[in-house]
Amino acid sequence: MSDTLGVGLIGTGYMGKCHALAWNAVGAVFGTKIRSSLVHLADISEGCARQKADEFGFKKSTGDWRKLIEDPEVDVVSITTPNALHPEMAIAALEAGKHVWCEKPMAVQLVDAERMAAAARQSGKVAILGYNYIQNPMIRQIGEHLAAGTIGQVNHVRIEMDEDFMADPEALFYWKSEASSGFGALDDFVVHPLSLLLNLLGTPTRVFAHQANPYPSRPTREGTHREVETYDIANVLFEIGNGISGILAANRSAWGRKGRIAIQIFGSAGSILYDQERMNELQIYRAGEHLAGYTTILAGPKHSPYDHFIPAPGHGLGFNDLKIIECYELIRAISGENARVVDFDAGLKIENCVHAMARSHAEGRWIEITNA
Amino acid sequence: MSDTLGVGLIGTGYMGKCHALAWNAVGAVFGTKIRSSLVHLADISEGCARQKADEFGFKKSTGDWRKLIEDPEVDVVSITTPNALHPEMAIAALEAGKHVWCEKPMAVQLVDAERMAAAARQSGKVAILGYNYIQNPMIRQIGEHLAAGTIGQVNHVRIEMDEDFMADPEALFYWKSEASSGFGALDDFVVHPLSLLLNLLGTPTRVFAHQANPYPSRPTREGTHREVETYDIANVLFEIGNGISGILAANRSAWGRKGRIAIQIFGSAGSILYDQERMNELQIYRAGEHLAGYTTILAGPKHSPYDHFIPAPGHGLGFNDLKIIECYELIRAISGENARVVDFDAGLKIENCVHAMARSHAEGRWIEITNA
Amino acid sequence: MSDTLGVGLIGTGYMGKCHALAWNAVGAVFGTKIRSSLVHLADISEGCARQKADEFGFKKSTGDWRKLIEDPEVDVVSITTPNALHPEMAIAALEAGKHVWCEKPMAVQLVDAERMAAAARQSGKVAILGYNYIQNPMIRQIGEHLAAGTIGQVNHVRIEMDEDFMADPEALFYWKSEASSGFGALDDFVVHPLSLLLNLLGTPTRVFAHQANPYPSRPTREGTHREVETYDIANVLFEIGNGISGILAANRSAWGRKGRIAIQIFGSAGSILYDQERMNELQIYRAGEHLAGYTTILAGPKHSPYDHFIPAPGHGLGFNDLKIIECYELIRAISGENARVVDFDAGLKIENCVHAMARSHAEGRWIEITNA
Amino acid sequence: MSDTLGVGLIGTGYMGKCHALAWNAVGAVFGTKIRSSLVHLADISEGCARQKADEFGFKKSTGDWRKLIEDPEVDVVSITTPNALHPEMAIAALEAGKHVWCEKPMAVQLVDAERMAAAARQSGKVAILGYNYIQNPMIRQIGEHLAAGTIGQVNHVRIEMDEDFMADPEALFYWKSEASSGFGALDDFVVHPLSLLLNLLGTPTRVFAHQANPYPSRPTREGTHREVETYDIANVLFEIGNGISGILAANRSAWGRKGRIAIQIFGSAGSILYDQERMNELQIYRAGEHLAGYTTILAGPKHSPYDHFIPAPGHGLGFNDLKIIECYELIRAISGENARVVDFDAGLKIENCVHAMARSHAEGRWIEITNA
Repeated sequence: MSDTLGVGLIGTGYMGKCHALAWNAVGAVFGTKIRSSLVHLADISEGCARQKADEFGFKKSTGDWRKLIEDPEVDVVSITTPNALHPEMAIAALEAGKHVWCEKPMAVQLVDAERMAAAARQSGKVAILGYNYIQNPMIRQIGEHLAAGTIGQVNHVRIEMDEDFMADPEALFYWKSEASSGFGALDDFVVHPLSLLLNLLGTPTRVFAHQANPYPSRPTREGTHREVETYDIANVLFEIGNGISGILAANRSAWGRKGRIAIQIFGSAGSILYDQERMNELQIYRAGEHLAGYTTILAGPKHSPYDHFIPAPGHGLGFNDLKIIECYELIRAISGENARVVDFDAGLKIENCVHAMARSHAEGRWIEITNA
Repeated sequence: MSDTLGVGLIGTGYMGKCHALAWNAVGAVFGTKIRSSLVHLADISEGCARQKADEFGFKKSTGDWRKLIEDPEVDVVSITTPNALHPEMAIAALEAGKHVWCEKPMAVQLVDAERMAAAARQSGKVAILGYNYIQNPMIRQIGEHLAAGTIGQVNHVRIEMDEDFMADPEALFYWKSEASSGFGALDDFVVHPLSLLLNLLGTPTRVFAHQANPYPSRPTREGTHREVETYDIANVLFEIGNGISGILAANRSAWGRKGRIAIQIFGSAGSILYDQERMNELQIYRAGEHLAGYTTILAGPKHSPYDHFIPAPGHGLGFNDLKIIECYELIRAISGENARVVDFDAGLKIENCVHAMARSHAEGRWIEITNA
Repeated sequence: MSDTLGVGLIGTGYMGKCHALAWNAVGAVFGTKIRSSLVHLADISEGCARQKADEFGFKKSTGDWRKLIEDPEVDVVSITTPNALHPEMAIAALEAGKHVWCEKPMAVQLVDAERMAAAARQSGKVAILGYNYIQNPMIRQIGEHLAAGTIGQVNHVRIEMDEDFMADPEALFYWKSEASSGFGALDDFVVHPLSLLLNLLGTPTRVFAHQANPYPSRPTREGTHREVETYDIANVLFEIGNGISGILAANRSAWGRKGRIAIQIFGSAGSILYDQERMNELQIYRAGEHLAGYTTILAGPKHSPYDHFIPAPGHGLGFNDLKIIECYELIRAISGENARVVDFDAGLKIENCVHAMARSHAEGRWIEITNA
Repeated sequence: MSDTLGVGLIGTGYMGKCHALAWNAVGAVFGTKIRSSLVHLADISEGCARQKADEFGFKKSTGDWRKLIEDPEVDVVSITTPNALHPEMAIAALEAGKHVWCEKPMAVQLVDAERMAAAARQSGKVAILGYNYIQNPMIRQIGEHLAAGTIGQVNHVRIEMDEDFMADPEALFYWKSEASSGFGALDDFVVHPLSLLLNLLGTPTRVFAHQANPYPSRPTREGTHREVETYDIANVLFEIGNGISGILAANRSAWGRKGRIAIQIFGSAGSILYDQERMNELQIYRAGEHLAGYTTILAGPKHSPYDHFIPAPGHGLGFNDLKIIECYELIRAISGENARVVDFDAGLKIENCVHAMARSHAEGRWIEITNA
């Protein structure tokens, strides 16, 4: 492989721009030997694509994503389109011999996620998912503290993920209210906490879930009301192995919450707290300390890879910086290094969990997850 | 009834002193017409009782609680002994024609709680339980906001109650680890959030519970290990009616938490947050406000009955002040006023809930609560 | 001295009730051998006095405070009247052989404060001032940490005291706007931070002050405007000895602040933060700790005398509890013990400071305080 | 001017990388028509420069900054070298017809700052300073609220800026302890709060300053001690016009503070709070609101130009994003738009203020600033 990595980007929405910014920044932040070259951008039409290509700094543009995948200058494809399109695009890209960076969740149907994982295995290429929250230096810190035994043996975990973009009961029925978009909070949100669990403690081995819907119907553009087919709220009890009990709660109709992912981890010698809305902070309590209380740690250069961004502590990374780190880890994976990524096999574990939760809700009982 | 209320106190531990302080203070704080007279104190022995009577300002003392109950000067009996003793004492006091102020929870066995409620009904006397957290002016504020529709129609609730007094795995096995003391976190802690729900939104109509134990065995004084028979952790999903889904979590082994009761209430037009560790604060988010964010309200004289304690805002009530308010509400109930108390019938509802949770844990399924 | 302490109370406003509550509670909280007896209450008229005596639990009442001072049953006099009346009442009480508990500040004029201190010295009686904030267990903790060297050698201090009871520009001109009431923020507020400094680090040896007035005139009841004669804002730079520089800021027109006293103390090995609006918390940073961050400590029974109120940590004291502690320290002083009080000599130091600040403002230069 | 802007960067330390990252990112974030081309990088030696040029993505490199300034491909020069070098480089670049983006502070000597401002005026080129904190969307929000009268007429301001990079008394004497580096906290820190004041309320018209030094001497590499010639602490009282009083405090030896810039602004109808350590939050109190308390607002797309980074609220910008915004404003200024920048004339105002403070310290009196 040459030192230049040709990048193709499909999709230019929220996550599309986020990927574009990461590809623009990653080289200078990390001083990587491999430099990304922004080769090709695909959008819904050639016109849109050209405009975004100019904005984001891509050379070529196309209204047909298959052209991008066939482009021999493209080495890696960022897929940031609606979830339903992930399987087809990701599998095509892998089959064309490209590395893939696909946004989460993998797919709406479990069988599609399985096909994606199989395609990745078969291709021998790097295929990862956009679970950016695991890249936060503070989340890495949590992992290091857990490994070092700072809080002893973990026995209880609570994770909440809440936003309010669907909190308005008068907001119109739209695609996220349709069953074709997935379960609702489960695949919109719960997959993120699961990616954190996967990274920090392992995924659940047993789940009990309850979904709820604060607004059973929503107004339509036509002035009628239509029954909502997804659940905005998911409440989950779980166990990891025999020793950890946990609660996972997600709500995309939670007025006041903007980007909350609140984590509480309790162990035999202390506890750790984190909230994504204050993503540059971490709180740790250690039993037996002279000063008994939560210590609030501000992100700083001691928390790798914060130092690649800023040499002074307390100055703060932003959400987009997480995506830059993810991009760097992808480059490391492509270079054959042992990188911190959620690959398609790990992603499939997360999907298995989510589907087990949906089944638990339907059947009103605990579901064991054998391949956790 | 004369303007003097003769007070008897059984038990002089944590809650015993708390009741004593309340009885000493209530008259001056509220300028009540009915004045309490501290008549009789009972403890494990006459010696202990005499010493505490002097400290707390009681006239008579006894090592035999039945003497106190028979004392014609005593109008109301504070019962602050271990839970297992509540039924016998409360029923005896009621049968002797005394009002009763009994600490929570009612009893270890559901049947005893039922007997207590029956005795209260039969006696025609006031019989209340020590659910002091509902007396916080900020909790009252929450109730007023819910009633006024400040956050619209409530659809989701989360309550957590955590402390760390049993978090040390090396702490010796003691009575709270024995099955005879009850379920563990369920009756130690969960009853408190239930008292708050009862007060604010109604008790659950359907529950799914999972109990867990971070430390399956504990060391004994003899150097051996003994299997723990109670659960320090309780994780509960619930519904109230058809419209509210909720999560209730309790952990008395949660390192770092000292007196946490964190409440999150989400509605169609906003949300409310509260944490007992910062009991003089309340956070409210209202959709559609010009300044979209949580407003942190400090307790002040506008939040009745804070004004009876301090005329200036932001100066803070303490935990013991909640007990003084509870004592005042008891006096109001005795005066025939419509008071804010958890009487034995309401307490029985809480016990029903807790026992339904225990059953759900055992059977791994949702339990409906018909008399919620 | 007998074991009963006869209490007289003059004044029944904010602080009057606060003293009354403390006298009612102190015996039971601390289990004192000396028990207070609420003997005599004086107010503006016999009618008012009688009503308040009944409410607060005092035996006798009078509309003439001199009668109270002459009452042989009275051993100690609580003075909670407007500041201008303190000198006459305190000196009369001391001359009548009573102990005195006088609210802060001592007096409006420095010469009166000097007369009060002289009277106290001559009387041989205990005479203290109501600087209750120093009684907070968390403030005591700060003192212990400073003494123990937890944060090394202190070199910088900032204290802010802010409330908003005069923040409304449309509020009517009243006595606090008149020069006869004193300087304004300086004696209303600054004396409190000075009492904390006195207690923790010593009072300033050199001050530079600037007073400001957000609203130069205020409306009157008659519909006119009247020029304000006091300053709501005081900004002060100071030094303590040669080694500590500091800032002291006070504002009684600070919209949003309800009872803020924010303290920041920096030393060579760490720092300490405190805010009275969260009076049950303390934050400490220690250089060189493995976990580098502020540790938030919740008040608990390890922080004497919290344990006399509640045996469990994190449950919170309230503002009135500080007055109960102050009352207990007064009783200890009367018993001849070495108590934590601001006596009239210490109070005079505070007054000296405040008057030096006023002079600095007038002369636009640093003022040395020789008797600090 | 063509649509390509040739960028030269001098210096590759903390701020050098920060500029490099901004130049890499600005086009994609803002979709600018003018695209930056990273042309030339200068460092202390050709070797260093080449390495950093590769890392940061610059085409050419040099060990002689004058070569960069003479490069006809360079349109704008980022100057991120030590403060003492700013005047020579900035003036040379301006004289060579380049736009200049120079890090703060302008210069060590006031006369040099004046020369720089004169050179900028004469050149007709854009010359701005790196006061990035003013670019935070939350700071812009404050400006908008002040303009809209959200908190009424401002009458009191407090700003604190604290870090702890010089807090260790055992840290070796280094160039920041030498008088040749400037005053110390005054030009290291105080200039930042002044840039915020300049932006929000105007610069002080009258100042009284006191500098202090927590550690009068520091160890040297040779094992001796050397007297410190700068001040780590600056305490300042000020006025803006006749109506605003203020306090400005800065401390670069403040253990525990990592990137604190705490702002409190009080007005006749409310107040605003901000802390750079939580740079995505803002707190506003408005008198007369139904819910009386501080509302905490999380940064979101309504707070321009947050929306260019992330379309969802509460996800957080980072410190480096502020520099990207600053870079964008520079490009706008070069395009002739009315941009939000601190140009050399504005920078000179800040320098005037700082030097007035130093004089006030020396003379112990208020200094008027006539050209504020």
